[in-house]
Amino acid sequence: MSALSEVERFARLRLARTDRVGPVAFSQLMQRFGSAECALDALPDLIRRGGRNDYIIPPPDRIEAELDAGARLGARLVLWGEADYPEALAAVDPPPSLLWTLGDPALMARPCMAVVGARIASAGGQRIARGLAQQLGQAGYVLVSGLARGVDAAAHLGALETGTVAVLGGGVDDVYPPDNADLYRQIVERGCVVSESPIGARAQARDFPRRNRIISGLSRGVVVVEAEIRSGSLITARLAAEQGRDVFAVPGSPLDPRAKGPNELLRQGAILCEGIEDIERAFSTLRTLREPGSDSPFAPQPDRTPDDILDRIEALLSPTPIARDELARAARLSIAETAAALLELHLAGRASLLPGGLASS
Amino acid sequence: MSALSEVERFARLRLARTDRVGPVAFSQLMQRFGSAECALDALPDLIRRGGRNDYIIPPPDRIEAELDAGARLGARLVLWGEADYPEALAAVDPPPSLLWTLGDPALMARPCMAVVGARIASAGGQRIARGLAQQLGQAGYVLVSGLARGVDAAAHLGALETGTVAVLGGGVDDVYPPDNADLYRQIVERGCVVSESPIGARAQARDFPRRNRIISGLSRGVVVVEAEIRSGSLITARLAAEQGRDVFAVPGSPLDPRAKGPNELLRQGAILCEGIEDIERAFSTLRTLREPGSDSPFAPQPDRTPDDILDRIEALLSPTPIARDELARAARLSIAETAAALLELHLAGRASLLPGGLASS
Repeated sequence: MSALSEVERFARLRLARTDRVGPVAFSQLMQRFGSAECALDALPDLIRRGGRNDYIIPPPDRIEAELDAGARLGARLVLWGEADYPEALAAVDPPPSLLWTLGDPALMARPCMAVVGARIASAGGQRIARGLAQQLGQAGYVLVSGLARGVDAAAHLGALETGTVAVLGGGVDDVYPPDNADLYRQIVERGCVVSESPIGARAQARDFPRRNRIISGLSRGVVVVEAEIRSGSLITARLAAEQGRDVFAVPGSPLDPRAKGPNELLRQGAILCEGIEDIERAFSTLRTLREPGSDSPFAPQPDRTPDDILDRIEALLSPTPIARDELARAARLSIAETAAALLELHLAGRASLLPGGLASS
Repeated sequence: MSALSEVERFARLRLARTDRVGPVAFSQLMQRFGSAECALDALPDLIRRGGRNDYIIPPPDRIEAELDAGARLGARLVLWGEADYPEALAAVDPPPSLLWTLGDPALMARPCMAVVGARIASAGGQRIARGLAQQLGQAGYVLVSGLARGVDAAAHLGALETGTVAVLGGGVDDVYPPDNADLYRQIVERGCVVSESPIGARAQARDFPRRNRIISGLSRGVVVVEAEIRSGSLITARLAAEQGRDVFAVPGSPLDPRAKGPNELLRQGAILCEGIEDIERAFSTLRTLREPGSDSPFAPQPDRTPDDILDRIEALLSPTPIARDELARAARLSIAETAAALLELHLAGRASLLPGGLASS
């Protein structure tokens, strides 16, 4: 993989920061146009084709400001397609378009395991998380978690000596919660803090699913220690399963409400985890490799999709997500044509591209 | 099923109490000779054929004494083949040849569920066992357990109102442990106490596997609440699985040594159980019925097996259990001939018949 030019790096960040260009659209634009520069050139026309006129590409000075803020902080930007973009994360569909990192990004190239769980964790849960993190570190894994209170913090603490990556919802300079400020400083010095958000951004509720997707995406597996049924940890577990990563759950007594989440995961087929032996056993078992998604390569496509095809695809969409290949069959189009049309509809706000090759109205 | 004559009942008890006639030999003798009377008539000759001369059938007065002791106690003897022998237990291979019962044996005809676990149970474990027993009772199940301290006692207590069966290792009059004397009295009054052992027998260590086999054999499923890795509860769980019954395990924290047993069962595929919902969900799922064992019916056989066949079979046996049908293939005999030869060798102490159609030297 050759190094990207500064112009293309700038263009990739700018494309990633464009309205309605999330990881799905980013990845499809990159596949379709080969470079962010070409995608940005084509974008205004694509947006107009979709029936919009409002310009949604951020002005260059906003991108320069983000790069300057990163430089002042000593943060490094790792873009999708660069040599130090983590391989495990690149295998996620779609991969996050970029990562800001503060600390040692090389940690992400080592085998990673995530330990996540309840913010309001019991003393026992924190002890388990810290112990697991220590065992994982001794076994050569880098510990990934979300720097939240409770289980996350305990896991990071247990792995400070051996290597830990904290994935944040806000920017890499968004120290939250305040009680973890000291832990944050230690991770910047000895581990790595990572985020998809711009420098200076404060974490919003909507950032956490994206943060969780990176936690699981960096990791070979996710261990859930204490979690309520409806919690971010269970979302991380679901994302991990969707990404083909192993989900481990630490069981607990039915009398403990914090065991409801892990116990439910066990019901759904998560691997029972009392310690590192359970993780090593799971990984030493010969496993079926994850099925690759659609095997339809994106053949070169015309730069624009005819209006009648856009309309035909739009008419087939509903709020219920539908698979791209199913849509292609229904519209009697190739998967490549359908994907191109969906991208234009998405950019115009007439459709939503969803991870896993799904789309909805 | 017609009622058995008093003579045949007497003969069945006598056959069951004969040395070396455990459930495996009992069931094969019954299949071969059709009645205990005929089996007892044939037995001295069979034993001689096997190369022994010591008479191992108990004298009639010992059997009369056992029946008298039962009558004095108000206990009822339920023999295999009688109408009130529990259907679930009859499906076990081989079924126990008899049950002494004190209390209401009709409870065993209702759907039963076992709850078993650690003698030295935590307060939480006892609370879970009692709560599960209550929920099972409300759902229409009769609660089966082993009247041990801890989990067993808590489970019986929770089900006193709705129906509970206590299976003992000693005779039905062997009240053990003494702290459960009051519970024992209540079960005799409102539930049922059951045992395969003669009246007056004190429980020995070797009685517990047989006791556990009845606990699981009476039940549609077994729930394990708190247990060490090497414990009677895990043996009961294994027996339940061999009998085609569902095994449920209540998860617990890795920090709690009493959770090691249930957590290990979960690793091995037991159904996670936090409450009655997990049990009802498992039972409402369409399940594959248990495979019946060998489909070779026992055709009528000559009363004696020729010496050369006995020798041929004996030569093929080793301390490692081997399946009867494999032995038949190796000996170039029919399964029926092989079974007959094994029975004679077993009665003569030259082979061991094991449950599940296995034999060893």
